Amino acid sequence: MGNRGEIDAMLQTGYPDMVKWRRYLHQHPELSFQEKETSRWIAGQLAGLGCEVKETEGGYGLAVSIKGELPGPVIALRADMDALPIQDEKTCDYASTVPGVMHACGHDAHTATLLGIARYYSTRRERLHGERRLLFQPAEELTPGGALGMIGSGVLTGVDVIYGVHLWTPLPYGVAATRSGPIMASPDEIFIDIKGRGGHGGMPHETVDAVLVGSAIVQALQTIVSRNIDPLEPAVVSIGSFHAGTTGNVIAEHCRLTGTVRTFNQETREHIKERMEQIVKQTAELHGAEAVLEYRHGYPPVVNDEAEAQRFFNVTRRHLGEDSVRESSLIMAGEDFSYYLKEIPGCFLFVGAGNKELGAVYPHHHPKFDLDERSMLVSAKLMIAMAENYASGE
Amino acid sequence: MGNRGEIDAMLQTGYPDMVKWRRYLHQHPELSFQEKETSRWIAGQLAGLGCEVKETEGGYGLAVSIKGELPGPVIALRADMDALPIQDEKTCDYASTVPGVMHACGHDAHTATLLGIARYYSTRRERLHGERRLLFQPAEELTPGGALGMIGSGVLTGVDVIYGVHLWTPLPYGVAATRSGPIMASPDEIFIDIKGRGGHGGMPHETVDAVLVGSAIVQALQTIVSRNIDPLEPAVVSIGSFHAGTTGNVIAEHCRLTGTVRTFNQETREHIKERMEQIVKQTAELHGAEAVLEYRHGYPPVVNDEAEAQRFFNVTRRHLGEDSVRESSLIMAGEDFSYYLKEIPGCFLFVGAGNKELGAVYPHHHPKFDLDERSMLVSAKLMIAMAENYASGE
Amino acid sequence: MGNRGEIDAMLQTGYPDMVKWRRYLHQHPELSFQEKETSRWIAGQLAGLGCEVKETEGGYGLAVSIKGELPGPVIALRADMDALPIQDEKTCDYASTVPGVMHACGHDAHTATLLGIARYYSTRRERLHGERRLLFQPAEELTPGGALGMIGSGVLTGVDVIYGVHLWTPLPYGVAATRSGPIMASPDEIFIDIKGRGGHGGMPHETVDAVLVGSAIVQALQTIVSRNIDPLEPAVVSIGSFHAGTTGNVIAEHCRLTGTVRTFNQETREHIKERMEQIVKQTAELHGAEAVLEYRHGYPPVVNDEAEAQRFFNVTRRHLGEDSVRESSLIMAGEDFSYYLKEIPGCFLFVGAGNKELGAVYPHHHPKFDLDERSMLVSAKLMIAMAENYASGE
Amino acid sequence: MGNRGEIDAMLQTGYPDMVKWRRYLHQHPELSFQEKETSRWIAGQLAGLGCEVKETEGGYGLAVSIKGELPGPVIALRADMDALPIQDEKTCDYASTVPGVMHACGHDAHTATLLGIARYYSTRRERLHGERRLLFQPAEELTPGGALGMIGSGVLTGVDVIYGVHLWTPLPYGVAATRSGPIMASPDEIFIDIKGRGGHGGMPHETVDAVLVGSAIVQALQTIVSRNIDPLEPAVVSIGSFHAGTTGNVIAEHCRLTGTVRTFNQETREHIKERMEQIVKQTAELHGAEAVLEYRHGYPPVVNDEAEAQRFFNVTRRHLGEDSVRESSLIMAGEDFSYYLKEIPGCFLFVGAGNKELGAVYPHHHPKFDLDERSMLVSAKLMIAMAENYASGE
Repeated sequence: MGNRGEIDAMLQTGYPDMVKWRRYLHQHPELSFQEKETSRWIAGQLAGLGCEVKETEGGYGLAVSIKGELPGPVIALRADMDALPIQDEKTCDYASTVPGVMHACGHDAHTATLLGIARYYSTRRERLHGERRLLFQPAEELTPGGALGMIGSGVLTGVDVIYGVHLWTPLPYGVAATRSGPIMASPDEIFIDIKGRGGHGGMPHETVDAVLVGSAIVQALQTIVSRNIDPLEPAVVSIGSFHAGTTGNVIAEHCRLTGTVRTFNQETREHIKERMEQIVKQTAELHGAEAVLEYRHGYPPVVNDEAEAQRFFNVTRRHLGEDSVRESSLIMAGEDFSYYLKEIPGCFLFVGAGNKELGAVYPHHHPKFDLDERSMLVSAKLMIAMAENYASGE
Repeated sequence: MGNRGEIDAMLQTGYPDMVKWRRYLHQHPELSFQEKETSRWIAGQLAGLGCEVKETEGGYGLAVSIKGELPGPVIALRADMDALPIQDEKTCDYASTVPGVMHACGHDAHTATLLGIARYYSTRRERLHGERRLLFQPAEELTPGGALGMIGSGVLTGVDVIYGVHLWTPLPYGVAATRSGPIMASPDEIFIDIKGRGGHGGMPHETVDAVLVGSAIVQALQTIVSRNIDPLEPAVVSIGSFHAGTTGNVIAEHCRLTGTVRTFNQETREHIKERMEQIVKQTAELHGAEAVLEYRHGYPPVVNDEAEAQRFFNVTRRHLGEDSVRESSLIMAGEDFSYYLKEIPGCFLFVGAGNKELGAVYPHHHPKFDLDERSMLVSAKLMIAMAENYASGE
Repeated sequence: MGNRGEIDAMLQTGYPDMVKWRRYLHQHPELSFQEKETSRWIAGQLAGLGCEVKETEGGYGLAVSIKGELPGPVIALRADMDALPIQDEKTCDYASTVPGVMHACGHDAHTATLLGIARYYSTRRERLHGERRLLFQPAEELTPGGALGMIGSGVLTGVDVIYGVHLWTPLPYGVAATRSGPIMASPDEIFIDIKGRGGHGGMPHETVDAVLVGSAIVQALQTIVSRNIDPLEPAVVSIGSFHAGTTGNVIAEHCRLTGTVRTFNQETREHIKERMEQIVKQTAELHGAEAVLEYRHGYPPVVNDEAEAQRFFNVTRRHLGEDSVRESSLIMAGEDFSYYLKEIPGCFLFVGAGNKELGAVYPHHHPKFDLDERSMLVSAKLMIAMAENYASGE
Repeated sequence: MGNRGEIDAMLQTGYPDMVKWRRYLHQHPELSFQEKETSRWIAGQLAGLGCEVKETEGGYGLAVSIKGELPGPVIALRADMDALPIQDEKTCDYASTVPGVMHACGHDAHTATLLGIARYYSTRRERLHGERRLLFQPAEELTPGGALGMIGSGVLTGVDVIYGVHLWTPLPYGVAATRSGPIMASPDEIFIDIKGRGGHGGMPHETVDAVLVGSAIVQALQTIVSRNIDPLEPAVVSIGSFHAGTTGNVIAEHCRLTGTVRTFNQETREHIKERMEQIVKQTAELHGAEAVLEYRHGYPPVVNDEAEAQRFFNVTRRHLGEDSVRESSLIMAGEDFSYYLKEIPGCFLFVGAGNKELGAVYPHHHPKFDLDERSMLVSAKLMIAMAENYASGE
């Protein structure tokens, strides 16, 4: 089981349904932590396959166990299911029917792919070694994410390894990529509130100018990356918004900055947090103001297991050919798949879904985002191939 | 005419009406350039005094000429009449009856005072040397101000000298102040629009960070006052508001700063404008952004004639006593009385209107602003005394 | 005594000696606190006039009491005597004979003038009301200055008022100036030592970059004048030198800044000191460095008594004519005459000594500095006239 | 030839001489481009081995061709020979005999190792496939480096591949490391000269403050790394020295900054240079100053060929064992070995030379630097093994 020919054949048969499913989901998107109907629909499909479905806590997650009749490992495969608060600008017949909500990141296709995999395994139990646990996760797009609730519900109990895929339009259809070790960033959120003392624009000496303090903090924050972080360690500190004051001739009393921090390891992350706290507090104080930094930890970095990343390279080379394998660069976005990888080994991979001829050229989260649906086939193939490679003990 | 006893006696008689008029106006405030009913009401009062009233252009201004039967100079006295977009928070029976509009700067009392002066002169024509021209000006509070329209209508034609008063709660009732040369600032407005290139918060190298550029401009603007302006020359550059970006994880494309510049002479003002243009343009460019400075000239500085200021000191010493005369410090606010003083000599003065026992303790433009109404008497007395001193050729 | 004709006549007679004395001193300059021969020479001249000379402590100062036979006040007149560490670049026959030392500030002429005044008074004791105390002070150019030692030696005991003059080439010969209240700045010195952690230029994260910290301090110091000080209050904070590091590829461990603070009142001075301490300490700390500010108080501001300044205007108008009187602007330099004025009332004035035709066009402390020697006559005349005006009880 | 046993045996025999040679060189260090005696001594040793030595131009370099009797590739091996201007603080009997000059980077051992390799090959010509070209290069420590002169003399003509080693005390004796692609930085030097306008510390408005401009440039330069460079691309911009002004109360006219830029690819390097030019020029201009950036290109980054790096991993695993192979991190220092690698494929590697028990614990360029001499044996072994592996066509 799991040889190349068999996987190809079977999936090819199931592909039309994967497309149908994906398009249905695309028309009926639901926001993070609100995927009630999506979850019910998935459960219905799975019931039709004779799968036993377990609802998880902390959201609308579902976990399916497909147990083989032969001994072997427990291998988890994960898809996410939530959509984004974006207005679909596509005009195709499967465009979103929900105003202001859209599957602009491809989670519809992730779910459809995993349903396809469910069908594959559910019809092969007698030849299956061990167990395949399929995780339909909610709320990947919204901190604190749906992964923690799934894990808290015990979906990883007894699991040996986990794989997850993101269909990826920056990569062309036909290729796949990952890397060993850190691959996706930890995206933390920062909120800085500065309190000065407002007053007459012509009498600055009776005030504490919150605009000046905010500006000084923005300047000083630049030195974290330029001076305090190992140049070999990728890190970003960005202030995305700066709001203070209402009119030109009154000194602002308050200033609010919001921003993001991106890192790839916990040590760098904590170091930046410490530096920010010091810079924010002392820059405010030296001007006579007060400032508070709220540092909201986002997902941890996604860190692939070295052996599982190597398994990806070997398996993908075999299934897609040497030219289709890429070493991924570090990706500055975050993913709550990281939580699974903090518990057990595994690998997160990117499967190319871009296609200029089809118009699948927009970046993720774009109002015209679409993908080459054949990438679902590639994704299903690679997930099954990696699982069976693992199960074979190679 | 114009000796101390006579002025005192007459005004004392007219004082109850000045209070009545002031309170009526206080209850019926109108915003700058919208003083239609106020103007009509003033014209009615003046008609009752037998004065000929001329409407000026560019607003609801009124000019009254009271011509004496004896030869002498033409002397202008000016009051302003507009209110502010502030909700009156007083609970007295003469509080504003117009929601969100209030005489929070004392222009009601300025107008009532000038009406009192009109009555004084209108009953003394046979002994009056020359002409007294009374200017009821609209829109002092709102750039471009009402003075320009008055002047454009020819109200200064043939005028030898002009006096104006601001009742002033920071000074206690009973004292009066002015200074020779510059006394009130030129309050210019600045608007800075920065255009960077927005993008992903984790990929700053593909963006031009408008928050950073705005912050760098704020920092660099500090050096105008600290380095470029003669330390003996008072000047202020303040950025009152800073708005850029909408969310923490997206680099802002746009940034808008607004601010104010306060100066006391034209040379400094132009120097600051030049420095700002250079700083704004080049700071943006060095970061790869573009920025535009819009520099809106407010009123020019109010510059008193040296001899007329000296006249104030002499006259006031005589009428109020040595202890009641003050040399005013420079005032950081602006006044469009400056336009008159650019045309002809004159003097702008402050008459104390603060009184703790009466609760007249709030600064101008405060929602609870009120004044010691007796300051109207002092103001009328000083304006007449200065005019008659001038007319006497002293 | 002290009428205009008499003063003029007498001084005219003594003028050739004043020139001779001044040129002798110009050829034999001595540095601050080293005026041994200068002092001995002055004492010799005074002895020749029959004056009793008292040596003061803390330097080579001399105090001469000339007591009149008529009752009256004690009035002090002061001159300073030290030269500067500057190489004289003039080629005239009275150029300095001491390499690297030069009377480049006119103290030679101050001393010669006071000698002339000594002769004037010493020959008129029988008609002199009260006492004239002539102070030949050392070390005006070098903190802590010679004035403190003079005062400590009791030279002001019983003194009612004090006058001092600076001959001033920025003013043309023939005019004189002063102002009421503050006239010369308090020039304080600042020294900032920053200690970071040096290291490899390519590994900034293992260092604390003292160049960066120094630069951040320089930037933050700008905000003292631009934001923290009343715009109506003249003040300057300048960093004159910045030294850190030895080579481009090594992060500097140390940084030293030196600078100056100029203020005109004690409150502003203390406020700036406090702000500097906070800025220096916290800017260093927020970058992980340490910094120490040494704030050396220079002379206090020179603050003229209001009545004595008015006396100057009256007297000078009378003696030199209306056109020769000027109100001085604030002068950014310091003077230890301030110490006398902290003890007793008095006035410090500037007597014009510039003359283009004579080449007396260079600023004070310039290697080619020279002055119109006739300014000594004007200076002597004004000091005597002010003293006698005071003594007359006017 | 080139099997593990043979290499080991032979080198073991030669090791005592390698130690002797290294110590001789250590006692007789010569500075970059001054290695006259060193070169003569090396030539003498090589002559003793019967090698034909060719002197290269542009320094004291030597190139030796050892031609085998069997057909095969031309393989270059390189050692550098120059010492540093550092005073040796060691007390051992082979310490430097030249005051202020020391082999503090291990080039003495590099040379001794290559001499050992020369002996190995010179005695095995009949079994040698192709040619081995041994490059004794001068002046690695001093820009523009000795490599360019060697290359200009034609030493790479016909060469197929080149290997070089740095003995490395941060790595323990017994291990070796390299990486594919960029491995050592491009260390460029920067010099910034700022011209403001000096003047009185109390009158900043008449000056252009070079200290302020320098500080503003230092601040703005931070944003290159924090904003303009891809966070995944290691880069450093450091200002190591900042010198301006001589005294606190005079505004500085000039300011000079020196610094270093470290990058690992040409595109980033050029981008930083462009950004620096813009920042330096425009920051100066916006303050009214002028500034010139001199950007001296140092060595290019050292970029290993992917296949040759892989050869290192394979060969070293075989010869030293799996545990002794490391993937090197990027090294922030530079090396002119990069010039060879711009011409032909090759690999630069690090051989561990640290040993706590022997006191070989100091970083390179430290006055007490020493190394575990057995690292020479490892180095010789790996260079020969890689060469023979290449020659074998594996």
